[in-house]
Order: sequence, then C-alpha cells, then structure tokens
Amino acid sequence: MKTYPSRRSSINIGIIGLGTVGLAVARNLKAVAGIRIKKGCDIRNIRFPFPVSRNPYDVINDPAISIVVEAIGGVNPAKKLVLAALKNGKHVVTSNKELIALHMSELLAAAKKSGVRLLFEGAVGGGIPILNTLRDELSGNRIDEVYGIVNGTTNYILSKMTAEGMEFSEALKKAKEKGFAEANPKSDIEGYDASYKAAIMASVAFGARVKWQDVYREGIEKIASEDIAYAADIGYVVKLMAIAKLAGGRLDVRVHPALVAKTHPLANVSENFNAIYVKGFPVGELMFYGPGAGGNPTSSAVINDILAIANAECLMPNAELRNYKIRKIDEIESRYYIRLQVPDRYGVLAGISKAFASKKVSVAAVTQKETVGNLATIIILLHGIKEKSLKSALSSIRKLPVVHRICNVIRIM
Amino acid sequence: MKTYPSRRSSINIGIIGLGTVGLAVARNLKAVAGIRIKKGCDIRNIRFPFPVSRNPYDVINDPAISIVVEAIGGVNPAKKLVLAALKNGKHVVTSNKELIALHMSELLAAAKKSGVRLLFEGAVGGGIPILNTLRDELSGNRIDEVYGIVNGTTNYILSKMTAEGMEFSEALKKAKEKGFAEANPKSDIEGYDASYKAAIMASVAFGARVKWQDVYREGIEKIASEDIAYAADIGYVVKLMAIAKLAGGRLDVRVHPALVAKTHPLANVSENFNAIYVKGFPVGELMFYGPGAGGNPTSSAVINDILAIANAECLMPNAELRNYKIRKIDEIESRYYIRLQVPDRYGVLAGISKAFASKKVSVAAVTQKETVGNLATIIILLHGIKEKSLKSALSSIRKLPVVHRICNVIRIM
Repeated sequence: MKTYPSRRSSINIGIIGLGTVGLAVARNLKAVAGIRIKKGCDIRNIRFPFPVSRNPYDVINDPAISIVVEAIGGVNPAKKLVLAALKNGKHVVTSNKELIALHMSELLAAAKKSGVRLLFEGAVGGGIPILNTLRDELSGNRIDEVYGIVNGTTNYILSKMTAEGMEFSEALKKAKEKGFAEANPKSDIEGYDASYKAAIMASVAFGARVKWQDVYREGIEKIASEDIAYAADIGYVVKLMAIAKLAGGRLDVRVHPALVAKTHPLANVSENFNAIYVKGFPVGELMFYGPGAGGNPTSSAVINDILAIANAECLMPNAELRNYKIRKIDEIESRYYIRLQVPDRYGVLAGISKAFASKKVSVAAVTQKETVGNLATIIILLHGIKEKSLKSALSSIRKLPVVHRICNVIRIM
Repeated sequence: MKTYPSRRSSINIGIIGLGTVGLAVARNLKAVAGIRIKKGCDIRNIRFPFPVSRNPYDVINDPAISIVVEAIGGVNPAKKLVLAALKNGKHVVTSNKELIALHMSELLAAAKKSGVRLLFEGAVGGGIPILNTLRDELSGNRIDEVYGIVNGTTNYILSKMTAEGMEFSEALKKAKEKGFAEANPKSDIEGYDASYKAAIMASVAFGARVKWQDVYREGIEKIASEDIAYAADIGYVVKLMAIAKLAGGRLDVRVHPALVAKTHPLANVSENFNAIYVKGFPVGELMFYGPGAGGNPTSSAVINDILAIANAECLMPNAELRNYKIRKIDEIESRYYIRLQVPDRYGVLAGISKAFASKKVSVAAVTQKETVGNLATIIILLHGIKEKSLKSALSSIRKLPVVHRICNVIRIM
C-alpha cells in the first residue's frame, strides 16, 4: 500500500561518497523508487549515470539539493561535511555509526537549528528497521531494554568457532578471507563497532543523551574454543551482545560476550546476521532480525530515510535528548560462567564452593571437565549477583592455593 | 525520542468492546501515553474509570469522538458498527483479523470516502509491528515474500508435540488447560485464523486485493507425533506456516504445516510466540518476532495506531488495493516430506524410487525407519517440484502393490 505524494519528484538528492553503500543507494533508489540522484561526490574517476564532483561542497552548496546522503564513513571529514550540509538547510541521511555515536547531540542540535532532519536508520542493524521502529512503530510503549547482536564480524567468528570448533585466530583468518572481517579487525573484534551501535540504540530507545565513552566494552578476543564447547555442553552459545537498559532512572549500556540459551531466538542468529531484542510495556518481548551490513541491506535503510523525508511522514522535529545517570559495570547484576583450572585432587571442588559461599555468592552449578596433566577444568555457573560482588569473590578465589588459574569469566544473558 | 504534538490531547477516543483487548487498550493508553478514554461501550455491568454505554451508537454518534476503537471481534455486528463509524467521519482502529480479512476492500473504500483512516496493526502478529513496518519502514523495498508463524495456538501445540513427544490430541488438551486454545479450537487448528492473517499480510505487503476465499488452507490436525520425530531426525521442526509470495505478477497465498530447518530462526519460535519473515529487495531477509496475541501485546499495536492517527504521522490516505492473479496450490513448487508404510521386504525401496523416477520426481533422500509387525516406515524427501507433479506421482505410488499406506505428506520450507 505504498503511494508516494507527487512532491517527492521535486526533491533532489545528493550523495557524498560512492563506495559500497553510496553506490547501492544510488542504484536502488532508481530501481525501486524511481528516483535519480541529482549530484554525487567521489574522489575516484569512475563513470556514474549522474554528475559527480570531487569536491563535496559542490553537493553541499547546490541550492537545488534538499537531501544530502553522507556515505564516506568515519568522523573526519564526515562530521565537518554533515554540519555544513545541515547549516545549509539540507536534510541529512547517513549510516555512519561512528559519527552518530560520537556526535549525535551536536548534530541533532544543528539539524534542529536549521529546521531540517538528520536520519540514520542504517547506523544500527544494517537493513533491520530498528531505530525507526523504536521511534515510530512502538511509540505506544515504555521501552525497558534493547539488546542484541549488532556486529556481523564477531558473530561470524563466534559462529565458526561454534559450528566447526575453530580457535579464535583461525576463525578470524577465515572471516578475513570471506570478506567478513577487515584487514585491521580491531574495531569489530574489540567491540568498538558494537559499542557505537549500543550508544545509538540507547539514545533512540530512551531519548537519552548517551556519551559513547560511557559504554562499557569488552571484545571477543579472550573467548577460547573450550569456552564455546563447555557452554554448548550446558545448553548455551556465546554471542557478543550490545545491551541498553533503563531501570530506576539509570542507564546501563554495555558490550561484551555473553552466554545465550540455545532455545533463545538470538541463539540461531548466525554468520553475519544481526538481531535486536526489545522489551517494552505493554508489548512484551520483540525481536528484529536481518542482514547487519552490506551495500544492499544498508541502502534499504538509507532509502527509507530518504523517502520518509520526501514523503514528510515524519512531522516531528528532532526531539530533545535527555541526560540519564549511567550505571557503572560494577553495579550491573548478571549470572556468570566461570572456567578455572585446579589440581585434580580430593576436596578441591568443596573448597571452591565454600569460598564462594563465604562471599555470599550463590553457585547454580559446578561441573568438572577433563583433566590434562594433573590439572582439571571446572565450569561454575553463578546465580545472579552484582558484578562488584563477583569481582570481590574472584579475587579471593584467585588466591586460594587450590586454584591454578581462572581461565575465563563470561556473563550469561 | 518520542514527542507528541499538543493536538494529541484534543483527540477523543471511544472504545466499543471492553474485553481483554479493549480493557488493555484503555488501561495502557492512560498508563503509557497519558490519554484517557472519552467513552466506552460494553454489555456487561462493570465499573470503568470512564462513561460506558450499552449502546455502541452512543460512541459512534458522539460528535466529540474522533477515533473509534473496535474491540468486539467477529464480523457481526463489528462490520456494521465499523462502517457506521467510518461513515460518521471517525477514524477506526481495530485488531479484528476476521473482519479485515473478509472485508478489507469495502472498509478501506468507506474510510477513503469519508477522508478518515482505518488502521489494523493488531490484526496480524499481536504486538509485532509488522503491518506498519511493511508499509512505512520498508517503503524503499520491493517486497517479494512474507511468511511466518502467525497462530499461537497451533504453535503451542506443535511445540509441545516436539518438546514432549505428545500426540496432537494430548497437546490440544494441554493448550486448552493453559488457555492457549479455545473451547472450540476449530478456527485455530484448521488454519482459519492463520488464513485471515495471511490474507491481510498479502494485502499490505503487496498492496493487493486478496480475497480470503483464495487463500489455500490446511490445518495441523493431520500431523502425527511420528512426523515430528522423523522430521527431528533429519534436522527439521514442523510449523504451521502462513505464506504470501508475489512472483511473476501472481500471488501465492497459503496456510499449511511445513518442515522448517532447525537452524532457521523460525525454528526457535516456540510456544505462543509469532514470527514473520520478510524477503525484499534491496534489504534481503528480515524476521520480526514477538507475542502473537494477548491483551497487553495487542494493545501495544492498537495504541500505536491511535497515536499514529493522533500525531498525524500518516499523511497518506488509505491506498488503492490492486488485483493480482492468484496462483493455485497445484502450481506452487516445494520440497516435500513423505511418510509411508511398506511391507518390510527386499526390493521395496528400489521399487518406490523407480516409481518416483518414472514420474520425473527427484528424490533427495530415503530413510527406512522402524518395522512394526511386517510394516516398515519409510521417510522420503523430494527435491523441489510442482505440487501438481507430486500429486500425480503420489497417485501412481499409492497404487503400487508394495505400498501399504501413504501416511502423511508435508511441505518443506
């Protein structure tokens, strides 16, 4: 039931950056919505079916252009160019998560000042319409929690480690070969990319001014194939989760690996797909699943933002963001998986359990795994406790003579 | 980032029907959006925090009311009341899938004539914002296919049969006890409810005028616990699927049980949850998951429709629906699972395989299961063929002296 008001045809669109996303936007905007790009900007000498300049200001200063698509990525010079476009009274559409995560407040304020819109659906979840859905289609809800798998590279690596028993380094190599990881994978592997998206999700879900620096972040580089195998034994898979919760007026925004029950719909989100869970009232729990990156999926999000502006479906000006207190990682409560090595001898399990009990930490399950040399591996699952209490318990347990090494600690969703 | 224009407060809402959904709408509209119901209608003598009449026309004819929520369900008298409200210039919001599936064209025409809106997000997928997302958030896509699990009762029954090895009748009994099946479960079990939703999804996804009578329909009453067990052996679960495809200008809309690969995100949709897959270009594949029924989830959809009207976010009038040719079930192409019983003796498998081959039907896998008495169960998986060819092959195979009985045939997604 799509109808486009005729005013749409009078809207001229300029694109800065004609790489994977920019090119897909230009191509699909023509193919699906019948809209031609007025002017592009790219530094390469490639032929396009529309005029292309090497100077971005030829787009930004063109009085005929009313929507500027920023598709160059990164903060510099994207921020300067987006601010200039907004100041010039152009609506801006971008899928640049780093730019939005680091400078959302400043950019929204500039858009508001000029009476134009800044939309960035493609910055989280690629083709999944999660941000606009949170804002428009769930407006009758109080959103309590938004969490999910928002980085395709780490999900591909963890999926390979799970399905084929690969070690992290091997799976990373495979991801690079397949084009799912970049030559320098630091931003994905160490959770930076996911933390940008977590900050943006939190901002949109809660109308909150979230500083990206306040997002707690852990990557997947410490996850060993044993952790994945042991997690599987007890019915879990390991996923890199981006989490944003609002409880008691405090925001909890973080990115870290977590155990997810195999029966949870998030567990079947494999390879480079993304999925985002939303908990709200009165709706309950929703999940949105789809391709998290790539030219075509991201172009779907960008094109929809363009059409939303062209159709003036969104009458609301960019809303004010509010300040919330941030919950420190020590204050969060979670269940935990702990893998440790102990000498394989009588009474060790009892000693460890006692040590946890003395710290008032409640153990849900203990399993002894294989012994290598004279070292046995023990998997401990803890009931929900505050991270602060966990850390204090772990520091006394680490000192126990019967504990050889605490190999890994992973939160359980 | 929700802001409500001030005009919202001047909009008065009336509700006809104060059962589970109507009451949840009234309660949550106040709690979440701060909006009070102006007038309600219900035939019971219960106290409500707003005036309630026994006569629906007290709501429909109230000049102060601009949005009427229909929450009585069924076609009579809902259709008459909705038409009267639309004619009176009231916007109408409903979650009545039967009403919308059977009379969408007529009702949309009446809304258009009066210059008002008819919204029905709650009619499909309960709290999942699938219809508005298809219409608004994916407007930059060509939608090719929409399919999923849209009936909670049958999904609960199939989940129980899968998880606990129950027979259909036992699982149905359990569903009734739990309140997940009605006393007369015919509409759910035989696929009527899902076929209403399939017709609505197809209409919205493709802007198509879909007659509900054209939706092919099979229920789950023939699914045996053996089918579920054998499907599990080969990596599948059985789900009741609602499917709407547009290919080559022809619509294919149907409801039937199907085998879904365990690794598919739909496989983990259990109990009374719903999930809808969308395939489009350029976005690729998306899935939307959530609670498929219930007062609170459905009220989320109804309230969002109310706010969409109140906020005038949707400037578009109700769009025109188009006519498409409907693809008959004989013309669809699918993979198939076939369970049959044969005498347990030499050469039987070869004979059956040859019979399929002579009909140019390609067998993907054959497995012989346990023998009871002198009858062996054989599971056959076929590669993709037209349903017409399958039927013709089955009718010759049924006549083979070595075939005791064809127990079941289920399509594979």
